[in-house]
Amino acid sequence: MTNSSEWILDPDRVLPADPVLRPLAREIFGQVAQLPIVSMHGHVDVQVFLDNEPFANPAELLIIPDHYLVRMLVSQGYSHAQMGVPAKDGSVVETDPRLIWKRFCRNWKLFRGTPTRLWLEHELAVVFGASIRPSEQNADELYDFLQDALQTEAFRPRAILDRFNVEILATTDSAVSDLAAHRKLQDQTGGGNIVPTFRPDSLLHVNNSQWAREIAQLSGVSGIEVGDYGSFLAALRQRRRDFIAAGARATDHGHLSADTTPLAPAEAQRIFAAALKGLVSDQEAAAFSANMLFEMARMSTEDGLVMQLHPGVLRNHSGTVQRLHGPDTGFDIPVRVEFTRALRPMLESFGNSKDFRFIAFTTDETVYSRELAPLAGAYPAMKLGAPWWFLDSPEQMRRFRESTVETAGFYNTSGFVDDTRALASIPARHDVSRRVDAGYLARLVAEGRLGLDEAVETAIDLSYNLPLQSYAHRQEQKP
Amino acid sequence: MTNSSEWILDPDRVLPADPVLRPLAREIFGQVAQLPIVSMHGHVDVQVFLDNEPFANPAELLIIPDHYLVRMLVSQGYSHAQMGVPAKDGSVVETDPRLIWKRFCRNWKLFRGTPTRLWLEHELAVVFGASIRPSEQNADELYDFLQDALQTEAFRPRAILDRFNVEILATTDSAVSDLAAHRKLQDQTGGGNIVPTFRPDSLLHVNNSQWAREIAQLSGVSGIEVGDYGSFLAALRQRRRDFIAAGARATDHGHLSADTTPLAPAEAQRIFAAALKGLVSDQEAAAFSANMLFEMARMSTEDGLVMQLHPGVLRNHSGTVQRLHGPDTGFDIPVRVEFTRALRPMLESFGNSKDFRFIAFTTDETVYSRELAPLAGAYPAMKLGAPWWFLDSPEQMRRFRESTVETAGFYNTSGFVDDTRALASIPARHDVSRRVDAGYLARLVAEGRLGLDEAVETAIDLSYNLPLQSYAHRQEQKP
Amino acid sequence: MTNSSEWILDPDRVLPADPVLRPLAREIFGQVAQLPIVSMHGHVDVQVFLDNEPFANPAELLIIPDHYLVRMLVSQGYSHAQMGVPAKDGSVVETDPRLIWKRFCRNWKLFRGTPTRLWLEHELAVVFGASIRPSEQNADELYDFLQDALQTEAFRPRAILDRFNVEILATTDSAVSDLAAHRKLQDQTGGGNIVPTFRPDSLLHVNNSQWAREIAQLSGVSGIEVGDYGSFLAALRQRRRDFIAAGARATDHGHLSADTTPLAPAEAQRIFAAALKGLVSDQEAAAFSANMLFEMARMSTEDGLVMQLHPGVLRNHSGTVQRLHGPDTGFDIPVRVEFTRALRPMLESFGNSKDFRFIAFTTDETVYSRELAPLAGAYPAMKLGAPWWFLDSPEQMRRFRESTVETAGFYNTSGFVDDTRALASIPARHDVSRRVDAGYLARLVAEGRLGLDEAVETAIDLSYNLPLQSYAHRQEQKP
Repeated sequence: MTNSSEWILDPDRVLPADPVLRPLAREIFGQVAQLPIVSMHGHVDVQVFLDNEPFANPAELLIIPDHYLVRMLVSQGYSHAQMGVPAKDGSVVETDPRLIWKRFCRNWKLFRGTPTRLWLEHELAVVFGASIRPSEQNADELYDFLQDALQTEAFRPRAILDRFNVEILATTDSAVSDLAAHRKLQDQTGGGNIVPTFRPDSLLHVNNSQWAREIAQLSGVSGIEVGDYGSFLAALRQRRRDFIAAGARATDHGHLSADTTPLAPAEAQRIFAAALKGLVSDQEAAAFSANMLFEMARMSTEDGLVMQLHPGVLRNHSGTVQRLHGPDTGFDIPVRVEFTRALRPMLESFGNSKDFRFIAFTTDETVYSRELAPLAGAYPAMKLGAPWWFLDSPEQMRRFRESTVETAGFYNTSGFVDDTRALASIPARHDVSRRVDAGYLARLVAEGRLGLDEAVETAIDLSYNLPLQSYAHRQEQKP
Repeated sequence: MTNSSEWILDPDRVLPADPVLRPLAREIFGQVAQLPIVSMHGHVDVQVFLDNEPFANPAELLIIPDHYLVRMLVSQGYSHAQMGVPAKDGSVVETDPRLIWKRFCRNWKLFRGTPTRLWLEHELAVVFGASIRPSEQNADELYDFLQDALQTEAFRPRAILDRFNVEILATTDSAVSDLAAHRKLQDQTGGGNIVPTFRPDSLLHVNNSQWAREIAQLSGVSGIEVGDYGSFLAALRQRRRDFIAAGARATDHGHLSADTTPLAPAEAQRIFAAALKGLVSDQEAAAFSANMLFEMARMSTEDGLVMQLHPGVLRNHSGTVQRLHGPDTGFDIPVRVEFTRALRPMLESFGNSKDFRFIAFTTDETVYSRELAPLAGAYPAMKLGAPWWFLDSPEQMRRFRESTVETAGFYNTSGFVDDTRALASIPARHDVSRRVDAGYLARLVAEGRLGLDEAVETAIDLSYNLPLQSYAHRQEQKP
Repeated sequence: MTNSSEWILDPDRVLPADPVLRPLAREIFGQVAQLPIVSMHGHVDVQVFLDNEPFANPAELLIIPDHYLVRMLVSQGYSHAQMGVPAKDGSVVETDPRLIWKRFCRNWKLFRGTPTRLWLEHELAVVFGASIRPSEQNADELYDFLQDALQTEAFRPRAILDRFNVEILATTDSAVSDLAAHRKLQDQTGGGNIVPTFRPDSLLHVNNSQWAREIAQLSGVSGIEVGDYGSFLAALRQRRRDFIAAGARATDHGHLSADTTPLAPAEAQRIFAAALKGLVSDQEAAAFSANMLFEMARMSTEDGLVMQLHPGVLRNHSGTVQRLHGPDTGFDIPVRVEFTRALRPMLESFGNSKDFRFIAFTTDETVYSRELAPLAGAYPAMKLGAPWWFLDSPEQMRRFRESTVETAGFYNTSGFVDDTRALASIPARHDVSRRVDAGYLARLVAEGRLGLDEAVETAIDLSYNLPLQSYAHRQEQKP
């Protein structure tokens, strides 16, 4: 138990309070707390590690780029501009990082009960060693403390990563990236622990406003002139090979729907040709996206890249916010999602293949017990990803286990996968996940449903072995 | 722990049993137990307070008007008539209140584990000071005890309200009400603590069988001859001004869908004109209802009334029961509801406005984490209402917090809002809510996620400050 | 708490660990642990009891026929063939039961946290008295131990059933079954404790590939030449009478949708005639299925058979697996299901009738609080079945109570109903259910929401009285 006036980061935080469960959870957590971090789904720009420059100030590290945090202040009446989020129309936004920091500190109470609070507490206390908690009164003092730390070598990006004990970190990269930054970084560092992920969304959604430009870039970077559906597929195959050569383990797909219905090649070509002329309906575009998920599965079966799918988020819910501040500013809202019928074409074709590996994520918790666990508990190719985005939180992680383990077990899940834009929050996120799983396993032990030795082994698998195996190069997998 | 053969209302009831959590929860609850009640969404008829007559008997106070309670007995084979619910066709219903009371007492076991039981226990023990629990054996004794109490001054409606420490109570009033009872009551009492709420449902659903009659009444009461869509909007604006003059803080909207898609004025006029001739399809009626939600939001932005929306209940599921006993007799059944896409038109237009305040309720718990919390955690205009109707219960209140706090925080919620038809249950409902929140906050404290001082402050906000602020006159809000 | 290296079946397993709740739960469970088993929804073939032959080996008793178990091994890369599941194309499958057993034992860890593990532990320890837990090392030893037991008289099917204290067991039988096995068994045993259930699915889904063959069989077994819709209904009525004569208490219906919309007789006849020619669309077939649910309800109202409905499972998700190994091999996946609108036609017509009894099951937990509990808490004819299939597990049973009791109470549920294919798991399933209910009731007691005496009475009702009453012959029901 902590009192907010003092700053004591409870060593048992997030573990169950029950006096029978807590010592068990503490014992299990103790076995995994220090394990290396496998971070296979991050969104930190590789350039940050290549440049390895100090972060400018606490607001630019911790606040402005974190849409979890900015959205909460916006929901209480602050504008994006007041929080320093750049405006696309060149209108004025707050540029004083200290003022932005103060706005955040003054509103610390808004984060009560949120994962953002847990992560920030961990970042401040564990990563920075701060001994004061954010408040209106101490905002300046805390700002200065953090600012001083950021100027030291220990807080440069690569140093942070080493300190975090990150064994491998995947970035997310546009399918038309030339991967130059990745190659340079690997040259500089000897490589291998920061790898790219192939994300072709803007190429697969043909009604995307950037689509034509992306197709042109695809031609350029692949060396294949993309003029029709056939050359499009060939160029995608080429790019996947390029990504694999740069160390990629996986592809990542953000679609509104999980539909994987394939099209006849002629129909796919017809829509592709229409899209080149800017003449596709939303329905045609959706059919093409679904077809491309099917084709991505086929290519994964060929080249071994793990396929990740994150459907069900309606991006840029507020047109006003999007026009002013662009995407990823806290106004992406989940919608209901369907997997059983949507994944059927893909799973019927590739789901029983030993060459296919597929990981599904959701922000709709209602599909866990009804659809995802039964699917993952049947098809060998499919694993359940960790609770994602809004669900990357203690209550939801607990519910994920309570909703999926009974049907899919622990071993049809990927183990913990963070989805981080905020570099400093990586260890906090893994820490929370390990604590929640320890608490769940402790309950199974206390209820006579699992041996303590089994619980410890399972905790280690969920924290370390399963993420490593789920994203291993195909040839590294055990038979 | 209580034993049913004796009557000890457990002072720790509904608080978590865990030996670590209970003392924390007790401490937090102790700080809010006696706070005044803010009851901003009630359904007690204002006439009851104006007349201030004694209630006739226990059955008419506690059983016959309570559809939560009657429905449970009906579900086990009693007819509405046997429980004294009036019949519209003039057929015979039970008129002996003592017999109705006995039927209820004999079936006390049916209510095990339900909120109805918690409320009734509170009413009997705390409000009436009864020392016996309902059973077949003691039904007469209890009836006589209650009947004696009801004849005393202390149990007249206004005296009850004072004893309950109700700071403000909102009734729900038809948009065509002349508000005379409200004005008289304010004249008599000096006014201000019982206020009306503007509920225009039957005017907004043009396929409602009462619609034409309501339109005529609207013309009469507004002084604006309603002949087309334009005069219809003008009359609604006038009536909102009338309600504001009578103290109203909010509007309330019961729609089957949460759709807020606006219509072009010409299309709205076309449907309105068709409705006047009784010639609208269900689809046109639904489109008009959606359009009117958009217009209600626009008017709220203009005049400051808080907009409340309760979608997703299919009214009068059994046509037979409706024909015999009318609406609100326990046969309203929830359906799946969608918010993300449905609210988008309204939120895109008004959701970032400082002049708009919107509170959403649901009986579909699946939207809490997926749709409602992400929306309320982004748009400044939107707050989440308390768990409503079937969800106004301990397990559901706990799940509401577990599903929404992590994404929306505590401060994008309205605090507790009861939805009471049964006057005597008001304090019981607020008591249960305060206990459940205390238990949830105690867990956050015990798990090192919140300081105890923060938990107490949050509990006070949820019980009192947030409801008061959420429904404050706009000019009273802090900037 | 147990440690996996030793074999101690925790006597408090599945009870809550909380030190306040556990003694209460233990006391409640103690009152129901030894009650007779009422098993009204089983899938063990009656022939097994008629033949009463020893089971061939542990793999054929415990593994091969259990799709819960096989699917988990398949999901981790074993083929159905490797697990001994017969192939329809005559291709080779594993025939060495010891090898199949070893594959299972080697993968014991996959079942951590699953109900399959709980059931198997109970079967091994309680039913067989084994003192070792499955593992790669002890697979042979355990196999030999079980094989020896299976050769004894005590492990013949009828002896097992007696030992399990099964008071009554219902099998599930095709509507075209001649019921000869049931009659013979009743002749041999004096009868009455093993009864058939009328399952007409393949007759009601006219686009089923077996439909024409089934219609021919229906003519033969009913003695009514089925040539049109009228004779079809007559033959179904006849078969229901035959089932009632053989002791049946209930019908059972597996439909993709819960739709109960009736058709005009002429339209039903039109579709029926088209189906005889093999010329029905999927939409027509679905409409006919819905109509037949309505007709089944009407017939239940006439003849008193309890109507059970289990909608929402998409059968044979993988066409490949179905073609190779047939149905019921672990590839049935739930889909979202809707009840409020779907059941309305049936409930409006029969839901308030004292002559109709209807029990609804779901694998979609999202409908519990939103649709099923409100419906069962209103209509006297309707009860909620126990958590079914993937939801027949501790976490889900707990959530079922937490999601339904507050709105429907305990007494609008059927009590525990298992859905067993694996004979040896029957007592394990009832044991788990009784433990979970004891834990839930213990919490209500500890939170001052229920007396301990009431909790014990409720536990007995849920374990024994409610299942018995819910499936009683109509004339046996109390008025």
